[in-house]
Amino acid sequence: MLNFECDYSEGCHPSILERLAATNMEQTVGYGCDAYCEQARNLIRELCGAPEAAVHFLVGGTQTNKTVIASILRPYQGVVCVETGHIAVHETGAIEATGHKVLTVKGKDGKLTAEDIQRVYDTHYGDVTHEHMVQPGMVYISQSTEVGTVYTLAELEAISATCRRLHLPLFVDGARLGYGLMADNCDVTLEDMARLCDVFYIGATKVGALFGEAVVITDLRLNECFRYMVKQNGGLLAKGRLLGLQYLALLEDGLYMKLARHADEQALRIRRAFEEKGIEMRYPSLSNQQFPVLTQAQFRQLAENYEFSTIEPRADGTTVVRFCTSWATLPENVDRLIDDIRRL
Amino acid sequence: MLNFECDYSEGCHPSILERLAATNMEQTVGYGCDAYCEQARNLIRELCGAPEAAVHFLVGGTQTNKTVIASILRPYQGVVCVETGHIAVHETGAIEATGHKVLTVKGKDGKLTAEDIQRVYDTHYGDVTHEHMVQPGMVYISQSTEVGTVYTLAELEAISATCRRLHLPLFVDGARLGYGLMADNCDVTLEDMARLCDVFYIGATKVGALFGEAVVITDLRLNECFRYMVKQNGGLLAKGRLLGLQYLALLEDGLYMKLARHADEQALRIRRAFEEKGIEMRYPSLSNQQFPVLTQAQFRQLAENYEFSTIEPRADGTTVVRFCTSWATLPENVDRLIDDIRRL
Amino acid sequence: MLNFECDYSEGCHPSILERLAATNMEQTVGYGCDAYCEQARNLIRELCGAPEAAVHFLVGGTQTNKTVIASILRPYQGVVCVETGHIAVHETGAIEATGHKVLTVKGKDGKLTAEDIQRVYDTHYGDVTHEHMVQPGMVYISQSTEVGTVYTLAELEAISATCRRLHLPLFVDGARLGYGLMADNCDVTLEDMARLCDVFYIGATKVGALFGEAVVITDLRLNECFRYMVKQNGGLLAKGRLLGLQYLALLEDGLYMKLARHADEQALRIRRAFEEKGIEMRYPSLSNQQFPVLTQAQFRQLAENYEFSTIEPRADGTTVVRFCTSWATLPENVDRLIDDIRRL
Amino acid sequence: MLNFECDYSEGCHPSILERLAATNMEQTVGYGCDAYCEQARNLIRELCGAPEAAVHFLVGGTQTNKTVIASILRPYQGVVCVETGHIAVHETGAIEATGHKVLTVKGKDGKLTAEDIQRVYDTHYGDVTHEHMVQPGMVYISQSTEVGTVYTLAELEAISATCRRLHLPLFVDGARLGYGLMADNCDVTLEDMARLCDVFYIGATKVGALFGEAVVITDLRLNECFRYMVKQNGGLLAKGRLLGLQYLALLEDGLYMKLARHADEQALRIRRAFEEKGIEMRYPSLSNQQFPVLTQAQFRQLAENYEFSTIEPRADGTTVVRFCTSWATLPENVDRLIDDIRRL
Repeated sequence: MLNFECDYSEGCHPSILERLAATNMEQTVGYGCDAYCEQARNLIRELCGAPEAAVHFLVGGTQTNKTVIASILRPYQGVVCVETGHIAVHETGAIEATGHKVLTVKGKDGKLTAEDIQRVYDTHYGDVTHEHMVQPGMVYISQSTEVGTVYTLAELEAISATCRRLHLPLFVDGARLGYGLMADNCDVTLEDMARLCDVFYIGATKVGALFGEAVVITDLRLNECFRYMVKQNGGLLAKGRLLGLQYLALLEDGLYMKLARHADEQALRIRRAFEEKGIEMRYPSLSNQQFPVLTQAQFRQLAENYEFSTIEPRADGTTVVRFCTSWATLPENVDRLIDDIRRL
Repeated sequence: MLNFECDYSEGCHPSILERLAATNMEQTVGYGCDAYCEQARNLIRELCGAPEAAVHFLVGGTQTNKTVIASILRPYQGVVCVETGHIAVHETGAIEATGHKVLTVKGKDGKLTAEDIQRVYDTHYGDVTHEHMVQPGMVYISQSTEVGTVYTLAELEAISATCRRLHLPLFVDGARLGYGLMADNCDVTLEDMARLCDVFYIGATKVGALFGEAVVITDLRLNECFRYMVKQNGGLLAKGRLLGLQYLALLEDGLYMKLARHADEQALRIRRAFEEKGIEMRYPSLSNQQFPVLTQAQFRQLAENYEFSTIEPRADGTTVVRFCTSWATLPENVDRLIDDIRRL
Repeated sequence: MLNFECDYSEGCHPSILERLAATNMEQTVGYGCDAYCEQARNLIRELCGAPEAAVHFLVGGTQTNKTVIASILRPYQGVVCVETGHIAVHETGAIEATGHKVLTVKGKDGKLTAEDIQRVYDTHYGDVTHEHMVQPGMVYISQSTEVGTVYTLAELEAISATCRRLHLPLFVDGARLGYGLMADNCDVTLEDMARLCDVFYIGATKVGALFGEAVVITDLRLNECFRYMVKQNGGLLAKGRLLGLQYLALLEDGLYMKLARHADEQALRIRRAFEEKGIEMRYPSLSNQQFPVLTQAQFRQLAENYEFSTIEPRADGTTVVRFCTSWATLPENVDRLIDDIRRL
Repeated sequence: MLNFECDYSEGCHPSILERLAATNMEQTVGYGCDAYCEQARNLIRELCGAPEAAVHFLVGGTQTNKTVIASILRPYQGVVCVETGHIAVHETGAIEATGHKVLTVKGKDGKLTAEDIQRVYDTHYGDVTHEHMVQPGMVYISQSTEVGTVYTLAELEAISATCRRLHLPLFVDGARLGYGLMADNCDVTLEDMARLCDVFYIGATKVGALFGEAVVITDLRLNECFRYMVKQNGGLLAKGRLLGLQYLALLEDGLYMKLARHADEQALRIRRAFEEKGIEMRYPSLSNQQFPVLTQAQFRQLAENYEFSTIEPRADGTTVVRFCTSWATLPENVDRLIDDIRRL
């Protein structure tokens, strides 16, 4: 069985293990206050063109999302998000557990528009009973999204401008930031992210690290006492240097983006193979997640040799599934998959 | 201006004020442990045909909803509710503030079906990643609903049976219970409510009292330590007897149902007038809330002499509005309104 | 049995019932937006010498405390309070239920000092690991306290100055504000309260009303979106005018302070009787709560004819008890009690 | 500078890195459902003599504490803990953030007694107003404690018996479990822990791993839906096998206990040196944390070459400090420290 089920089935890029081994018996202070973390923070600031930005290292995505969102919202506020957003669906109510409603809008292909945000805002304040409703307090989007699509620079500029005009902090979930930025249809850079978002993170768990999400806060008002929040939410790793070291390995020579680009290229090969076969692709994704719509026969045939995710059974008997590549996907495994797609 | 905006614009039925005055200088213990509350609890048990039921008096609806729901759910569970449900829309995120997601389903005319509940359940447990999602932990419906519709006995039986089979406690918001049970199209009694629900409340704020919601718990496992919950949620009224006294006044001679019936009858007269005029009624409500769809001209004309609520502006320029009657609505005011509807 | 157990055993001052009856069938808008509430808010602003202050009416003390505190604190902050404080002991963890720790200090006679506050602050920021601890975010005191003592003007000035220097909002629980301000040893006025506190409330549940707590916010930054908070916490009474009307009755002719003074005077008579008998008074209270230390024989003898509260059994066999007077306490009942104290 | 500041300043035991490297490019399913985690769970069950126990792997201590406690308590309940307990002091209010009060008792040398627990219980239920107070819902202790002391088998048996009689689940924080069990004055085994506790964890972050806490649940009622809780609290590591692999490395050949024993032995050498010098040791700890009381001169002299923690400045000018050893402490560094202690 070849695994195309997710982007976190292997360990990490070997350079990370080497770096952990090389520094293993050094003594450092804990909780991210060590020199490696500081170097990694500086490197991130530089790559983001944001010399003043605050950078914090957390362990995983759900933890990061709940910590950031709980730190920004007032008790009566909620976070605006598309219906398919990770925080709306796949975090076992972690946001609600911090007391906040996720205000979902339908969106399109997993994405929110500037108009959606404006509409949520206008609808709220346009209602005379708005004090009886949850106030929109910030906006959450993902780059790339849960369905592999990406925000273009124009889209992100529009969202950012709307958020700033409405005083709604913009937070971007970057669990798959590398895969998003490296997609063929994405013209956004790390510097754009830093310029247009108020908080975002550079996800590494899914892009080559053992674990780790680097939160970049460019609106420094949102950074006040953020470390208290991280601690309270169980995200302050005792041996914090493990995070600094991993980001140094991934970011020093552009490895992070190279690994992401590799995954996107392999995903694109898979997409083309499905398309050539005339199989519908559910979402216009050019990043590392691909969502073909399979007949039952196609599903069974592929399931014999490949692991992939079932996303949505449809009324007509077909099923939306997900094939996922990663930094570790072997091209020869993709070759085999493509052969098998052609044989469907 | 005549007010048809809501069902809580007057004070209370005079018999309540009389009773408060007659007992005013008596000394009783606080927090609902007095003899009047005990009498009222016994009366409610009797009227519900539920001699073992626990009864608690709270002050308002949002408070009651959050207290009951927070007392039932485990931290990772949510409450199933229609999209228009009061807890989903009009409580400023009170449920989320207790840590729980409101799991909305579309519903029809403000109502949930047994099938909806089954589907939410099956979808959750049918997903292999269900531990990453909020688990459905109970069901919330309203009788009557936010849009004036009611659950018939057959519908309530089906919902109750499904909930019991799936071990999902059924909680009915009865802020307008009188108006619901007294509607022409409702064949449900208080005894049915007690037999089919696990928790429900008999709302008085909107049906003749100054304030008050009487929570009836028939599944006694859900009653364990409930008073701690009421206290923690700020719902344990110091002078608790005020609640007992009001319920005695409302329930001793069937006054509660008589007042509710009056409101429903007046609402029905208004409904008929709109229908005779050929005006679309948005919801098939026979209870105290009526939702005509007005053109801009009709809206302006009625707004000159009446206060009513704007519910939803529609793309075609019409507006769904709400006319609400209550226990205190004067028939002569309804006469005037009907005349003016005819003149539209 | 004569009841000296608490200050909420009767209904309300008759003038309140009269006013409710006189306005009963008027139609007003809900949720405190009516003209009576507005009049009452203006009257309170005037009595406080705080024309800009925001005023909100809530139903009860626990509700008010949790709403105010949750609205002020950031998620990682706690509220500084004496060990005997109501929020620390008698609210079933309502503050913790909103996510916040109550940071208790020992205090003296139920009171906090400016030095206590400074020490909590210094200890926190003086610890290099302070991000691992709950940050002090505001200060909560009560006037009068749980044990009947009061803050003098000098004490309150010192506390206020310290709080402002340290940027810690000062919130005063005024559930018994009348009894506090009218005590012989209290030189604080309503205007002082408004000048020195950032938020406080004028409690009426225990001082002559059926229920009601009027929150006065003088630091208007703390007022932002406060009504959302009230709604979320279940404190926005549908028939809000009931609160406005009661405060009008209590405040228009100084009735509130007169009723409070009456209770304090009766309490003082009881105190003197115990003192003359040589019975230790546990706290130096001159307000409406008195805490004699009774031997078992004395306890039994008084318990035959009076209800009072047991506060603390002591190792030597004596018991601290509480005798409480109120706006409704009859002087002839106090006469009888004094006779019986003399007979001990 | 030699570091005796904490027990998490190095990376991990080399055998862990080897194992991570050896399995790095294997593909496994995520979230702890892989074969390595299953092996590690089985090994832990075996070592605990608890073949039915549930085992879950989390990343850090605060996360583990808040997840376990929030999963056990009902909303109105609190957790009983000594004043120096980690959850009471050093987790930035993580427990309160889940809605629960930490009910502190004074304790002695960082330890709780069975009598303390009984007293908390009796005090609560003995108070007629107990519904106005937080109900004790479970008991939290640490083995070893924050001050290095340990519970003996007799003490743990007594606590366990009391907890079971009172239906209070017993949860043991084992962030330093190895150091506790291996201390000279500790006669408790892993099997005893499993037999006497309802939930406990085997901490590895501080005992040789990069990170990791293995939660062992022996009362299976407390295991229901626990994985939902872990996910909601941000503790479900995507690459869960990292935890399984580390525990396999630590537990397969008794390495965990060997590493712990080493740290305790080095700590004991330090203790003896201080004692021989006549320096007061603040706590009777024989585990890896030692708390000498230093004069200002002694403090300054040692601070020139060693890093250690300041715990508590005392009124007499002396300071309680902490020297901490770990699995990685080099005996030659302890030799140097001992020499320097002798030279004080």
